[in-house]
Amino acid sequence: MGVEIERKFLVKEELWNKVRPESGTRILQGYILSSPETVVRVRVHGEKGRITIKGKTQGVSRSEFEYAIPKADAEEMLKEFCEAKIIKVRYELKIDRFVWEVDEFESPKKGLILAEIELTNENEEFAHPEWLGKEVSHLPEYYNVNMI
Amino acid sequence: MGVEIERKFLVKEELWNKVRPESGTRILQGYILSSPETVVRVRVHGEKGRITIKGKTQGVSRSEFEYAIPKADAEEMLKEFCEAKIIKVRYELKIDRFVWEVDEFESPKKGLILAEIELTNENEEFAHPEWLGKEVSHLPEYYNVNMI
Repeated sequence: MGVEIERKFLVKEELWNKVRPESGTRILQGYILSSPETVVRVRVHGEKGRITIKGKTQGVSRSEFEYAIPKADAEEMLKEFCEAKIIKVRYELKIDRFVWEVDEFESPKKGLILAEIELTNENEEFAHPEWLGKEVSHLPEYYNVNMI
Repeated sequence: MGVEIERKFLVKEELWNKVRPESGTRILQGYILSSPETVVRVRVHGEKGRITIKGKTQGVSRSEFEYAIPKADAEEMLKEFCEAKIIKVRYELKIDRFVWEVDEFESPKKGLILAEIELTNENEEFAHPEWLGKEVSHLPEYYNVNMI
C-alpha cells in the first residue's frame, strides 16, 4: 500500500507528437464500485491484470492499494462488473528522475491526452516539458472515474 | 476466480458445543464498498490478509474473486474504509469429503453461529450433521454484508 501523490496536466498535442515514444501500452479499465470517497478499479494493462483500491483525494495525495491479479480475472471482472470502460494508450517518458505517464484516450473521451507525474512529496519540484498544458490535478472532470 | 456455491445454516448450539474443534481462527472483516449486486470485502484471517470481490447471488451461486494480500494492508484498509466490522471465530470441521466452516460471531451479532458448506454444484448432496439447524442460504439478513 502507499500514498499516491500525483499531479495531472493537459497536453499540447502538437508538441507532444514530436516526443511521443514509439510504443505505448493499451489499458482497459473499469470501476467495480465507486463512491465519492473510494474507488475499486480493475485494469488490464498490456498483458497484466491489476486491482486497485483508492481512497479519498486530499489535495494531490490519495491512499492507494494495488495488487497484480491474473489477466483473465481482470477481463472477467470488467465483463461482469463494469458496464462502462475506459480505453487508453499509455506512453511513458523519462525526464530527469521522473517518469511521465501520458494517456491518450480512445474511449470515452477520444482525443483527450493527460500527463501524470508521481511525486514523493507534495512540494517536490520537477521540470515542466514544453508539451505540458494546464494543470488539472484538482478538476473532478478529469478523474477517470468521472469519465464513465 | 470462480463461482462460489454455498449453503448456509443456523447451528444448534448445545449439539455444536459437543463437537466444536479446540481452536478456531479469528476473522476481522469489513466492506470497502457494497451495492445490492456486488461487494468488495477485506478480511484479516488469522495471520493473513485477503481481498474478495463477490458478484450477485443467484440461487446459492455467486461469482467470487479472492486474492491474498499483506496482513498490514488489510488492517490499513479496514481502518481507512470500513466503519463497521464483523468479528467472528471460524472453526473448520471435516465431515466426509466436505469441510464445514462454522462461524461464531462476536460482533455485531454476538451469539449467532452459522455453518457453511461449499459445494461443487447446486444439487450436490451432503450429510446433515445433527447440530445443523434451519437453512438460511436465501435469507438476506444472514448475509454478512447486511449485518453491519
